[in-house]
Amino acid sequence: MISDELIRKIHKKDNPSVIGLDTRLEYLPPGLYENAAALGDAAEAILKFNKDIIDSVYDIVPAVKLQSAYYEMYGYHGIKTLCETCRYAKEKDLFVIMDCKRNDIGSTAAAYSTAYLGMTKVGTRKIRAFDSDFVTVNPYLGSDGIKPFLDDCIKYDKGIFVLVKTSNPSSHEYQDRLVDKTGNTVYIQVAKDLAEIDTDTGASGYCRTGAVIGATYPEAAVILRNILSKNILLVPGYGAQGADPVLLGSFFDKDGTGAIINSSRDILLAWKEYGTNDHANAAREKALFMKNDINKNIIGKKI
Amino acid sequence: MISDELIRKIHKKDNPSVIGLDTRLEYLPPGLYENAAALGDAAEAILKFNKDIIDSVYDIVPAVKLQSAYYEMYGYHGIKTLCETCRYAKEKDLFVIMDCKRNDIGSTAAAYSTAYLGMTKVGTRKIRAFDSDFVTVNPYLGSDGIKPFLDDCIKYDKGIFVLVKTSNPSSHEYQDRLVDKTGNTVYIQVAKDLAEIDTDTGASGYCRTGAVIGATYPEAAVILRNILSKNILLVPGYGAQGADPVLLGSFFDKDGTGAIINSSRDILLAWKEYGTNDHANAAREKALFMKNDINKNIIGKKI
Repeated sequence: MISDELIRKIHKKDNPSVIGLDTRLEYLPPGLYENAAALGDAAEAILKFNKDIIDSVYDIVPAVKLQSAYYEMYGYHGIKTLCETCRYAKEKDLFVIMDCKRNDIGSTAAAYSTAYLGMTKVGTRKIRAFDSDFVTVNPYLGSDGIKPFLDDCIKYDKGIFVLVKTSNPSSHEYQDRLVDKTGNTVYIQVAKDLAEIDTDTGASGYCRTGAVIGATYPEAAVILRNILSKNILLVPGYGAQGADPVLLGSFFDKDGTGAIINSSRDILLAWKEYGTNDHANAAREKALFMKNDINKNIIGKKI
Repeated sequence: MISDELIRKIHKKDNPSVIGLDTRLEYLPPGLYENAAALGDAAEAILKFNKDIIDSVYDIVPAVKLQSAYYEMYGYHGIKTLCETCRYAKEKDLFVIMDCKRNDIGSTAAAYSTAYLGMTKVGTRKIRAFDSDFVTVNPYLGSDGIKPFLDDCIKYDKGIFVLVKTSNPSSHEYQDRLVDKTGNTVYIQVAKDLAEIDTDTGASGYCRTGAVIGATYPEAAVILRNILSKNILLVPGYGAQGADPVLLGSFFDKDGTGAIINSSRDILLAWKEYGTNDHANAAREKALFMKNDINKNIIGKKI
């Protein structure tokens, strides 16, 4: 089961972190994109950069997260780079989380799921359009928008992460609204529903359905970790978004497992921070720093 | 202003409806896709079908809505077809609504907005990746996820439709949750915030920021039409989703304007309903039926 495999990869590399390839042209060091004059040039330069980063970190991280927005900016050329980055990362035995926060009515959610987790029928053939391992899903439309993804998770042994409490400053506007007298908020209700929608766990104790909870809201994590005891948490907000690493412990379970922390800009722009043009080695150095920074703050971690 | 232009196009064609090009390979009549064996073949066949539909209806409808999911299913080939369908519709003087329900934290929402409403910087050039006119946005992340789109709406005279009350059966699960003692639900709160976030209206009385409200919930429309008095409503759910056309009147303002009703599958599959392989003429016939079916139910419409 994919949840077991993700936990296994995290243990093997002793690294509960994921690198977000939110690559935009301006993040590349001088010399890598100066000649780009069209969307296709930009997309090619970004693919090369992504492959350099993957080559440099694949032995030390379990997964990469691809933020679809940064590829959509470059039109269909960008989507080709997204697709090829996904394939390249999988060749290097990394899990790929497609961070596209898709959401729609049932029939359309099924089409999204086909694109990222399932197979597209063309004539007598069934073809994988993207072949990512996990996809992020927005819950605003309710269970209609989540179940088609769950069906494909079971059929193809894939996973999803549903947005529960997002890392951004305005996430409170709707997510924190109280929906009853017992203190339930919208995001707590989403978490409670999520805990019930998929209870099929593997040997790791985790199911294929995970949740996104921002590292910037560790107080929410304390409550949500209990509700989502069988769900892996994908935690963005470390690094550039300013979450306190000391408080990351609350996202993990009592055995120090069950969460994966993302950093994007800090890794991609490490070359700038370290004052070098060697983006690949700078990313590796920063990824190792992140691994240690997270590990030392996991309470109960078995060493 | 784009809102004035949309209202003007609706008046000129006497048609407050939009055709949803949610095209998947199986929707094409026999003979148009039998030889498709790869994603690229499928995407080409879909592009040809879309152009046939556009050629057949561009003089009678003001806009088309492209549902991104159905193109993402065919990988980057599908996105190329999405991009080219968008361009072709604009050449025919149709507005293009990109229905992709994007949502993310501020910096990433800005990247999505760049892709669909703005311009992508490559070297010294600024290039339009998709150049759609309107984009749909999911509000779960709060104003951080909406404001970057608004900035581009002002900068480039584009528009957005924010999901308020969606057409699917499970939309009540979170959207209908009561958030205070005065009867406000999540979706009413989203609508109230939306009414305040953009008050810059043109001669038509409408601003660039619209709302998505499902045709399947006419009772919600009665409340929302009042709250969103300056916002154009994009209304999916007519046709295959089963909304009652007699109740569509409540989505329009007292002058019979301010809403645009979408139908997708009914138009694309009209060839099947009418027992013909002439998909282009069948779509036109169905689109004309839809136009009349909606117009006769608009109360207060100036004829």
